[in-house]
Amino acid sequence: MTTTKNDRILLAHGGGGQLTDELVRNLILPSFDNDVLARLSDSAELNLASGSVCFTTDSYVVKPLFFNGGDIGKLAVCGTINDLAVAGARPAALCLSLIIEEGFEVELLKKILASAGKAARENDAPIVAGDTKTVEAGSADKIFINTAGIGERLPGAKLAMERIEVGDKILINGTIGDHGMAIISQREGIKFESELKSDCAAVCGLTSRLLQETNGVKFMRDPTRGGLAATLNEIVRGSGLSVEIHEADIPVDATVRAAADMLGFDILAIANEGKFVAVVSAESAEECLRICRAHPLGAQASLIGEVGETHDVPMVEMVTKIGGRRIVQMPYGRELPRIC
Amino acid sequence: MTTTKNDRILLAHGGGGQLTDELVRNLILPSFDNDVLARLSDSAELNLASGSVCFTTDSYVVKPLFFNGGDIGKLAVCGTINDLAVAGARPAALCLSLIIEEGFEVELLKKILASAGKAARENDAPIVAGDTKTVEAGSADKIFINTAGIGERLPGAKLAMERIEVGDKILINGTIGDHGMAIISQREGIKFESELKSDCAAVCGLTSRLLQETNGVKFMRDPTRGGLAATLNEIVRGSGLSVEIHEADIPVDATVRAAADMLGFDILAIANEGKFVAVVSAESAEECLRICRAHPLGAQASLIGEVGETHDVPMVEMVTKIGGRRIVQMPYGRELPRIC
Repeated sequence: MTTTKNDRILLAHGGGGQLTDELVRNLILPSFDNDVLARLSDSAELNLASGSVCFTTDSYVVKPLFFNGGDIGKLAVCGTINDLAVAGARPAALCLSLIIEEGFEVELLKKILASAGKAARENDAPIVAGDTKTVEAGSADKIFINTAGIGERLPGAKLAMERIEVGDKILINGTIGDHGMAIISQREGIKFESELKSDCAAVCGLTSRLLQETNGVKFMRDPTRGGLAATLNEIVRGSGLSVEIHEADIPVDATVRAAADMLGFDILAIANEGKFVAVVSAESAEECLRICRAHPLGAQASLIGEVGETHDVPMVEMVTKIGGRRIVQMPYGRELPRIC
Repeated sequence: MTTTKNDRILLAHGGGGQLTDELVRNLILPSFDNDVLARLSDSAELNLASGSVCFTTDSYVVKPLFFNGGDIGKLAVCGTINDLAVAGARPAALCLSLIIEEGFEVELLKKILASAGKAARENDAPIVAGDTKTVEAGSADKIFINTAGIGERLPGAKLAMERIEVGDKILINGTIGDHGMAIISQREGIKFESELKSDCAAVCGLTSRLLQETNGVKFMRDPTRGGLAATLNEIVRGSGLSVEIHEADIPVDATVRAAADMLGFDILAIANEGKFVAVVSAESAEECLRICRAHPLGAQASLIGEVGETHDVPMVEMVTKIGGRRIVQMPYGRELPRIC
């Protein structure tokens, strides 16, 4: 911001006056360059092909702001795109809203905005509206970002928990636990021989291919906070059916596994940021796997289990590598604060 | 949350596990009761009449959280509805995202959610998706709320800065400065003989009446942060035309004026949260005024000025009560942090 000569964010950058205007024009508009945003209307106006709209929101409070594999800007864009993607939608547009602590370095803000803008462009999900608020030093931890997104349901995508049946297969597009273990190891200052890297990525390209090239996908969800364990438990609760997974079929990076073991985390409860779980029909399962494996974000995709009858109460069970059985519970939630 | 026996928010309430689930089911769903939200999908799905969608976002960091005339929940809903309303849209749905400081009282959260839910229902703008994040004590100031909104453009509403012409009139739907002065006086602990009260309200009912009963409205904007001064300067910059306003015609509550004078604030730069500025054709001005005055949120509406030729650079000028002229500048922005 050459005009303000400030290298730190001031409270006045959120005041709605000259300084807000300079911040928006000098920093934000160039990062997200597009015509709709450039109008700076109170609301962006968009023309979608149909009136069927998917709508989602997420706030991001990840700590640290920059991590191996991404940063809060990329995460905020990819995370909200993924919520649209797993709903069977093509992301159409995003809003991005900043809450910035007074004193935050403008250079870091620039990096975060550039990263968010890059992720938005790469996934054809323009950031069309935004907001900037500032709070006094000590009233927030550096920066929080909210992204909301709208998308159009892809033709033929009929995803619903209610469609899940006994015999359906559970597919995941790659290794689990990468994001959570990358964040926690960086936060704790622990180094491993091979560096842990977040899987932070937008999966909309792969999910849309799956939905367009097969008709076997019945439900999808991204296993973020609470990890695979939370997602599978949500599926069990929503469908009323049980799920059995096979530990040996769940892809886990060796360093991620070592880190989780060392730090005492259950890998099933660790957050992912570039993964989706798909429930697919038995007939389409191999075809879905093939489509995933042909895509850069699905090279390590795996069929990890299946939907089964409920005997007593519907539950998630895991057949362990040594042939035992273990109930996979909904995590309590205190494992990893500020993971996304 | 009877099941958790907690009267304060814990970090685990944002962990994506059991406690998040309890928070969502016991507190959030009942506050915003509607079928789309109750599905707890990754994205809400909505059917709009057309594919023309308005999309907006705002984060709210107001301090104090509860103020005379409203609270952060009502403000977050009304503020985003107003951004859609002044764009000429009927609000269709909102997303609401919470960032909560560890230790925040659950009772206060309940009140805030109830207030947000009430405002959403009253304005037929259901909250269809949401998110909850928690951060450690000291990493945020109690609670921040983001609301994003989508709306459908009202038939016949063609609002654009480009339509503004010399001779158009400037209309405001009531007194200015009420929100900002209510917040600041409460924050500073200053009492006045008659209590200051925020104008916090959703103006969509009135704006839609204006747009449906006349065709003279060319542009609208809500004068929030930066107040009337910022909004008029944005109009001048966007249209390339000058604006002249008449101090004597600007409605100001006597106590608000006294408070602003006493505390040294320029009333023109103070935030409003239930007001809109409309630029209307000269022919329709009296009709627009009549429509406003017949509505509870426009009883004190006034025509406060007009659009004029630009001589040197386009600017906002005010004819003072004693007949002098004063240039109204874009405020710098440091007047009132955390006003919304």
